[in-house]
Amino acid sequence: MIRYEERFSGQKETAKSSRAEEIFEAIKKEKETGVSGYYTLPDDSQAVLSEVETYMKDTSGFLAQINTIAVIGIGGSSLGTKAVHAALESRYPHAKRMVFLENPDPVSILKQFARMKRDNTLFIVVSKSGTTIETTSIFKAALQHFALDLSQAEDTKRIMVITDSNSPLDRFADAYGIRRFHIPDNVGGRFSVLSSVGVVPLRLAGYDVASVLQGAAVFGKRFFEGKENHLLHKAVYLTENREHYPVTVLFSYGDCLENFTKWFVQLWGESLGKRDAEGNHTGLTPVGHIGSVDQHSFLQLIIDGVRDKTVTFIKIDNFDKALTIPDISLKHIEKVDYVNGHTFNELIDIECDATKESLMAKDIPVTTIEAESMSEFTVGELILYFEILTSACGIGMHIDTYNQPGVELGKRILVKKFTQQ
Amino acid sequence: MIRYEERFSGQKETAKSSRAEEIFEAIKKEKETGVSGYYTLPDDSQAVLSEVETYMKDTSGFLAQINTIAVIGIGGSSLGTKAVHAALESRYPHAKRMVFLENPDPVSILKQFARMKRDNTLFIVVSKSGTTIETTSIFKAALQHFALDLSQAEDTKRIMVITDSNSPLDRFADAYGIRRFHIPDNVGGRFSVLSSVGVVPLRLAGYDVASVLQGAAVFGKRFFEGKENHLLHKAVYLTENREHYPVTVLFSYGDCLENFTKWFVQLWGESLGKRDAEGNHTGLTPVGHIGSVDQHSFLQLIIDGVRDKTVTFIKIDNFDKALTIPDISLKHIEKVDYVNGHTFNELIDIECDATKESLMAKDIPVTTIEAESMSEFTVGELILYFEILTSACGIGMHIDTYNQPGVELGKRILVKKFTQQ
Repeated sequence: MIRYEERFSGQKETAKSSRAEEIFEAIKKEKETGVSGYYTLPDDSQAVLSEVETYMKDTSGFLAQINTIAVIGIGGSSLGTKAVHAALESRYPHAKRMVFLENPDPVSILKQFARMKRDNTLFIVVSKSGTTIETTSIFKAALQHFALDLSQAEDTKRIMVITDSNSPLDRFADAYGIRRFHIPDNVGGRFSVLSSVGVVPLRLAGYDVASVLQGAAVFGKRFFEGKENHLLHKAVYLTENREHYPVTVLFSYGDCLENFTKWFVQLWGESLGKRDAEGNHTGLTPVGHIGSVDQHSFLQLIIDGVRDKTVTFIKIDNFDKALTIPDISLKHIEKVDYVNGHTFNELIDIECDATKESLMAKDIPVTTIEAESMSEFTVGELILYFEILTSACGIGMHIDTYNQPGVELGKRILVKKFTQQ
Repeated sequence: MIRYEERFSGQKETAKSSRAEEIFEAIKKEKETGVSGYYTLPDDSQAVLSEVETYMKDTSGFLAQINTIAVIGIGGSSLGTKAVHAALESRYPHAKRMVFLENPDPVSILKQFARMKRDNTLFIVVSKSGTTIETTSIFKAALQHFALDLSQAEDTKRIMVITDSNSPLDRFADAYGIRRFHIPDNVGGRFSVLSSVGVVPLRLAGYDVASVLQGAAVFGKRFFEGKENHLLHKAVYLTENREHYPVTVLFSYGDCLENFTKWFVQLWGESLGKRDAEGNHTGLTPVGHIGSVDQHSFLQLIIDGVRDKTVTFIKIDNFDKALTIPDISLKHIEKVDYVNGHTFNELIDIECDATKESLMAKDIPVTTIEAESMSEFTVGELILYFEILTSACGIGMHIDTYNQPGVELGKRILVKKFTQQ
């Protein structure tokens, strides 16, 4: 479970409640009319989960030989899955290894290939459109490198596809008899982690995905019952003050959240960086940092630099492992003995508190999300919290949260450069 | 070697040349008066390198058993070393493994400890001040976990210290007969990678540090001869337009540069996020991204979001490994066959070019740094380039580039929280 301390310094809870109410109504409408399908994924994905469970029973002999789940996908097709995997990994010493093939960097691809064995690997190709150039290219390289023959059922069973219904990749899977799962049409890549995109690979690796979905479901239910209105107030604050505070910093204390912050950066940047109804450029620039390590990097800028940043801290009350700072006093560095006998858990948490207080003392707007522990349930809650916050801000900014028209030109230039060579 | 295409869209080379000249003179003065000692590190560190070589000869029997270099340090004590290591790693299949113990996250620390063996590990404790709380705490945990006895020469030889002369950690090393190297007083953490901080662990791991220093030396020489004035013009542009473009994006195409971009983020953020002579908050906010993967994340925001970003691309012409996209045509996804037969190297480079052109078409200020390959020499060049660029911007903004007063309050609050418990 998560506790939210969402009121920015100086922000009154009652202020702007009419604006918050408007956003709430608009979100309800988005959910009801299916503008985006992510709102109902915690329920809708139960069917996907059952389908995976059935598949696991039916292919138990084959899956027993698989120790590596290789996800071939980029952006929204991998970031969410990586985020959940990294957040929970330390709880699953016996999970199958997950490998992510994302960037078309030859050094990385060959390094990953070298760590995989054909007979122990399940290759999952994930692409919503079905024609993502990085993904299809890496898939072809994998076919060749691991000598996978698409005319042999013995080989095609080692491949799985996750894509939109009737996409080119879907029709490809159909043509070769490859197992596939569909992504709902109205769920965009960056909002898709709780769809088959995340559910299938994570479940196959051994994660308790049902609890992730449950955490998201519980948060969603509470939000739509009007019990998580702090989120709406935060969205009102962020959007109404966006010219003053255009940079949104997420400062997560715990290495296991590094991929989660990357997922957030995509979600926030690609959803909210838009031209509004009047054609004006608007947006909130996301920056992800990890504490306490980035206190030694970015904190000076937040405090003394231009005051254009809001900061949200994520703090984990109980880490999955315990380690005490030994009660050792070393000659000449006795000055640091004040932490002796405390745990590293205490050190990192108190560093978070101290940093937060130092920002508040300088009137920098901060909010905190405090997780009891980094459980499956908590990860689900966090995902839906940030997704709904994104939608709420998009409504507050009068933009289309779910498209990404800006990247099309680059794609066209790319094709042109190759086809004119 | 590196090629720079530094002129921002619409920027005339001749414009502001008097301002550039002023900055150039101020930098020469910083170098001559030793305001910061990093300018002369490419030469000064030759002595450190000799000292390491001597140490390696003297302890060759011991070092033959060492297969892991564990760097215990945070922020400026690790980021630069990690950056060089990651950039060059694929060239050194036989280098000793480098492990970085940075964050006081108990899960991470125990995970790293589990991968290390006492008898094969050299522990290098790096802290400029000598009292960094994360570093000393992790060092104590390592002493206990690996049962290292400071009264035994057999054990103290497994430890090394890199710190300022006469710091508490220096006196500690002295008291226990531990081998130590010094950091020049006038070289701050984030500018220290070419000092003993980076030179010692990287050389011990097996890297050709002499070539890294040489790359930096050559770039420095050319700059001070007035042959790299593009850097000054870039600094003038960035600082004079900083209200309009407060966000500096570094978009590096190649996974091996991910840690380099993190190093850049610290260098830029902590150096330039300051109150100026009049007490006004100023700064440039650094954001690091990796292509092509973050084209699927942050690019939409750059293009359609608020136009407050400049973008610098780093492109690698020749990756260290070659991999071709196989000439395989798959039913229904023939649309992507246009890249068949090309290399991944071409794909990622042309993605960089296409992205750059799409930004230029939207009048977003971009510059490019093109590296022939990611060699030792190139890494050295890149380091000094970004360090001098940072100094040039600091001069342009009338700030102290080399201090970090903003983080002191948080440190005081931390101590208070522990000592009052």
